[in-house]
Amino acid sequence: MREIVLDDIDDIARGAGILGSGGGGDPYLGKLLAEVAITRHGPITVVAVDEVPPDAVVVPVATLGAPTVSQEKLPNGTEALAALRALEHETGLTATHLVPIEIGGMNSLIPLALAAETGLPIVDGDAMGRAFPEAQMVLPTLAGIPTSPMAIADDKGNTLVLHAASSLWAERIARAVCVATGCSVFTADTLMTGAQLSDGLVADTITLAQRLGAAVRTARAEHRDPAAAVADMVDGVRLATGKVVDVQRATTGGFARGTATITGTDSELRLSFQNEYLLAERDGEVVATTPDLICALETDTGEPVTTESMRYGNRVTVLGIPGDPRWTTPAGLELVGPRYFGYDSDYRPLAP
Amino acid sequence: MREIVLDDIDDIARGAGILGSGGGGDPYLGKLLAEVAITRHGPITVVAVDEVPPDAVVVPVATLGAPTVSQEKLPNGTEALAALRALEHETGLTATHLVPIEIGGMNSLIPLALAAETGLPIVDGDAMGRAFPEAQMVLPTLAGIPTSPMAIADDKGNTLVLHAASSLWAERIARAVCVATGCSVFTADTLMTGAQLSDGLVADTITLAQRLGAAVRTARAEHRDPAAAVADMVDGVRLATGKVVDVQRATTGGFARGTATITGTDSELRLSFQNEYLLAERDGEVVATTPDLICALETDTGEPVTTESMRYGNRVTVLGIPGDPRWTTPAGLELVGPRYFGYDSDYRPLAP
Repeated sequence: MREIVLDDIDDIARGAGILGSGGGGDPYLGKLLAEVAITRHGPITVVAVDEVPPDAVVVPVATLGAPTVSQEKLPNGTEALAALRALEHETGLTATHLVPIEIGGMNSLIPLALAAETGLPIVDGDAMGRAFPEAQMVLPTLAGIPTSPMAIADDKGNTLVLHAASSLWAERIARAVCVATGCSVFTADTLMTGAQLSDGLVADTITLAQRLGAAVRTARAEHRDPAAAVADMVDGVRLATGKVVDVQRATTGGFARGTATITGTDSELRLSFQNEYLLAERDGEVVATTPDLICALETDTGEPVTTESMRYGNRVTVLGIPGDPRWTTPAGLELVGPRYFGYDSDYRPLAP
Repeated sequence: MREIVLDDIDDIARGAGILGSGGGGDPYLGKLLAEVAITRHGPITVVAVDEVPPDAVVVPVATLGAPTVSQEKLPNGTEALAALRALEHETGLTATHLVPIEIGGMNSLIPLALAAETGLPIVDGDAMGRAFPEAQMVLPTLAGIPTSPMAIADDKGNTLVLHAASSLWAERIARAVCVATGCSVFTADTLMTGAQLSDGLVADTITLAQRLGAAVRTARAEHRDPAAAVADMVDGVRLATGKVVDVQRATTGGFARGTATITGTDSELRLSFQNEYLLAERDGEVVATTPDLICALETDTGEPVTTESMRYGNRVTVLGIPGDPRWTTPAGLELVGPRYFGYDSDYRPLAP
């Protein structure tokens, strides 16, 4: 058990932005929300997965939508709590802990902000070990833990609780609600007991995010290569360093989808994304795929470059980072492998 | 208080099909569901609005979607009860009565089927005095009774309960869920107490439907004009008798939208619809508009012709029937007048 204080948030936001594989929403916005919440309500208690009692009621809270939209249509600040309370009301359970559904920009920091606001402890971990775009793409799905009941709240005061026939239906219905209400909603779903966390979470990822964020900050201060500092810490493989020469992006079906092309000294890397970077091709050859993390950093500063902030002219370094091993099982690849997203490629392990 | 028995359903379905103004879903399908339910569970108790105790918990159940779809994608038979139970669970209330949200084809008969299944009495009335396409288009909206909490259930086993920021948001979100799950869902919403029924319902419309259905049947047996029998009973105005020469119809945004053109002996009538017939123009001049009822009947048989069953070559008689006077108030016209639907016309009262 430890505390997260105001000064920790900057590193956590930076590191979570990196681990988010380009998604999870704008880390800057999440950082502001978490900083405001800590300033108002005080520090956050963080507990390790193995410190959580088996009968604990652990609730992931998150945003769902297109990050392109959430960057512009700001939350009103009440949505996360509204979603949590709606889920509690429906289930008759009272949350004892919060947890991020994914380690990725805004979606790592929303639960921290809500933890500060409610005084609930946060579990050090997340349900993906990265960010993925769809609600059913979580380790609990592999462990047989359903996405629903799922509570959804928006900025207008609409709330609903869904009991879906499957976790894929939860995603489809939530996405439709999200699009109808302006493409950015808050969710509380995939409720777990403490006993389910070892199957449902990647442990210690909040701490990992904080360490990565600190490593980047330190490297920058010491004029070392921030991307190298990240790669050292998480077995990262450098896929490219270069300049962004083309970005195609559309907000369709409740997602930000598109491609980004990075030209290096002697090769060209093309990234395909659906909220998150999901496929990297170097000169036409697939060199990294989901579920491994594909992470873009500003080459100079090491700051994460999300799919919605990628712009022509950015100087970026792209790293591949191995995903949690549970994702590269057959069941894992069926859920989040490149073919699920419509890419004509099998999973390709990262080559050093 | 009286009973509805198996032999009553045929007349009710026919009459409700007429009063549905072309909408409310396929009356034949509703008839089958109600007949099966009565055969299995026995007759239905019908109570008049003024027989309902003030503290009664009255729940309208209905289908929401595009009738074009519900005609082909049949319900699995559990949806109405699932929606009712979800609403009861959420509110902590137990329904004492059911009521149709609209008097119109399938949506008049679904509550009858559920009344037979649950043994709950049904209130003789409905919340429109016709059918309208959107969830907020009910007299309770004019009386300040909200649409939500709203429970939605589909044929796949998905259920949700929505607390909407407004009744219009309830419609928008429900429509999005409906489209995402296949364009036909069941709803339980607009819960009313017995004391609210005089404001929220048009009284006696189940009985009116049954009388209209019987009048058509009798006229047909006696070789009299069925449409004239209908017009006599409800102050109907004959807008056209002729042949359908053109139908344009698309299923878009969760509705069946389009136009139908009927050529008579000396004029042409063009009907515009969004699930229901909403505007009638004779030789380019508006002769009837929502909220008055625009009802198409097979000229020979008097059977209702819904917007989704209207076909080239049908011989039809179109009647205009005055809507409930609450609909032609300024607030009523704002909610359901022709301009709401995008037609460039004010409300035009029927001229004899």
